[in-house]
Amino acid sequence: MNITQRITRVRNLCNEKQTDAVLLTSPFSILYLTDYLGFYDRDAYCLITPKNAYLLSNALYIDELRQQIDTLTLVEISKENRLSDSIKAIFDKEKLQTLGFEENNLTVNEYQSLKKKLPYKFIPLTLDTLREIKDTEEIEYIQKACLITDKAFTYILSHVKNGMTEEKLAYDLEIFVKKQRADFSFSPVVAFGKNSAIPHHKPDTTRLKKNNIILLDFGVKVHGYCSDMSRTIFFGKPTDEQKKVYETVRVAQEKAIEYINNATAPFKASDIDIFARKYIISQGYPSIPHSLGHGIGLEVHESPILSPYSQGQLTQNIVFTIEPGIYILGKFGVRIEDMFVIRHEKVEVLTHSSREILHP
Amino acid sequence: MNITQRITRVRNLCNEKQTDAVLLTSPFSILYLTDYLGFYDRDAYCLITPKNAYLLSNALYIDELRQQIDTLTLVEISKENRLSDSIKAIFDKEKLQTLGFEENNLTVNEYQSLKKKLPYKFIPLTLDTLREIKDTEEIEYIQKACLITDKAFTYILSHVKNGMTEEKLAYDLEIFVKKQRADFSFSPVVAFGKNSAIPHHKPDTTRLKKNNIILLDFGVKVHGYCSDMSRTIFFGKPTDEQKKVYETVRVAQEKAIEYINNATAPFKASDIDIFARKYIISQGYPSIPHSLGHGIGLEVHESPILSPYSQGQLTQNIVFTIEPGIYILGKFGVRIEDMFVIRHEKVEVLTHSSREILHP
Repeated sequence: MNITQRITRVRNLCNEKQTDAVLLTSPFSILYLTDYLGFYDRDAYCLITPKNAYLLSNALYIDELRQQIDTLTLVEISKENRLSDSIKAIFDKEKLQTLGFEENNLTVNEYQSLKKKLPYKFIPLTLDTLREIKDTEEIEYIQKACLITDKAFTYILSHVKNGMTEEKLAYDLEIFVKKQRADFSFSPVVAFGKNSAIPHHKPDTTRLKKNNIILLDFGVKVHGYCSDMSRTIFFGKPTDEQKKVYETVRVAQEKAIEYINNATAPFKASDIDIFARKYIISQGYPSIPHSLGHGIGLEVHESPILSPYSQGQLTQNIVFTIEPGIYILGKFGVRIEDMFVIRHEKVEVLTHSSREILHP
Repeated sequence: MNITQRITRVRNLCNEKQTDAVLLTSPFSILYLTDYLGFYDRDAYCLITPKNAYLLSNALYIDELRQQIDTLTLVEISKENRLSDSIKAIFDKEKLQTLGFEENNLTVNEYQSLKKKLPYKFIPLTLDTLREIKDTEEIEYIQKACLITDKAFTYILSHVKNGMTEEKLAYDLEIFVKKQRADFSFSPVVAFGKNSAIPHHKPDTTRLKKNNIILLDFGVKVHGYCSDMSRTIFFGKPTDEQKKVYETVRVAQEKAIEYINNATAPFKASDIDIFARKYIISQGYPSIPHSLGHGIGLEVHESPILSPYSQGQLTQNIVFTIEPGIYILGKFGVRIEDMFVIRHEKVEVLTHSSREILHP
């Protein structure tokens, strides 16, 4: 666990933004700095100062944290010693003046009440890039999550049955994932037939029929780290149109990977999206109604986003998805999504399920 | 589904706060007004105006929403027609001037960017009380969740085994819940022996030994509605001290219920907490290190909170927990938690598992 290195990353971001200290409120930031999986929202806060790193939490956790946390200094907060009181005491002791906060997480109400009580300069910080580059331990958790995802897909391929509902398939998938001691990283998409044309279709009571397309988009979580994979399979025979759409999506994904492998790092996330997107359009299909992909780690969707508007870059040890899709409303949709990591300026795939046209 | 009544409740809150319209951003507010379970955070927004109720969402959902949403007017948002553009168009059309927002949900960054683009007066709103009073359909979902919780507890009682880990018990519980087609409403507490003294202990590899206390705190979710129940059982023989602590906790819960049944509505949440808390202290034990209870519905913890500092009240059709606990660090803890609803000024219990001392 590289907690010390992670704290240094936070301090570097503080230096860039010229703030003395930063208050971390997002559960993902806190998990990243504590490796403690048990907090609910606002059960804990981290305060990183130039000299110290504090974990502030309440009586429900403090005894357990004493046994488990060593890199951060524990501070108990309560009705008598509130978050703002603790920050003030630390700021006084360490003679600090500026307080950074997560502008994408702190609510308006929290901001106003802290402002009222703390006579410091508040600096809005965006910590989106903090967790972009993964360390060895993070990549190992992600690889475990990908392995379970591949296994779950193989399992489902042999358990698809005529007449089963989307809900039943989602249920079977989840029980399999649970038995691997993992959790879903998000509520899965299971879409039969024309439901596959809805990119985020929620599994319902639609029953599987002969010659239906099956679109699956699911992922699992291992020690907080997520996987995310999509496959489109054919329960029966694909039509010529379906084959052509499938092939176009598959090639779009390959082209995105080739683009990175042939370019020089750092790779602009927007360029990669536009390259794959243009290919799909050039084949006479509508533009992808979502981003081509996204960073992934403690959150399913995190920075960098691979979209035409993205400011992000892909560099060494960034883990991300590439998931082109074509959706023809009222008919069917196809999406293929895999996870990748950049190593030595090349793309390595982390999900290994076949991308060929499959018939369960 | 009383969506129209729920929209009226939102409008009443707007009137109280003298705002023309309100932008709802919290996923729970949006679920409450749409009954659509498929959104992730910021995939959708509701805008309630005096004359209309809008659901704003993106291309990933819009086709599915067209089939499922009838009470709200759908607006598609995109990079070309952003949330702020849509709000502006609606405000222009309906000649509105003030925009309420959820101050406990909107982030500082979102607030600043909306402010920059929208020349209206922004009014911070706290919608905590919006979902306090449950309608018939909500109570039915909650009752289903409680029923599954009781069943799961009965199941676990007969599956507790010497030497099993806390993680394994949590796993068995979850698989049982899944088989009932429900999900956990939160990550459960399973604590053996002295771990039970940590109120929010996360299940680990601790193994069950003869004469251990087992503290369980778990709940399930049915159609988004949560249950939450705690039981403390004895794997073997309780000591005299444990029996006394258990009895004190059980009586504290009973006294809280009696207090409500003997008082006149509306019941002050803080009074109920203080009454039970004082009883525990009067028996020579430490004060409860958490609130006596909390409202429950789409969120596990929602308004009203039963704490000494609460401003809340219990009235007809409010669903809540009462969960006194005594924790003796390094030794053991006892918590008993049940769910209740107020009907005709009396407390009705929703969870029916035995509160007697149990030996599995």
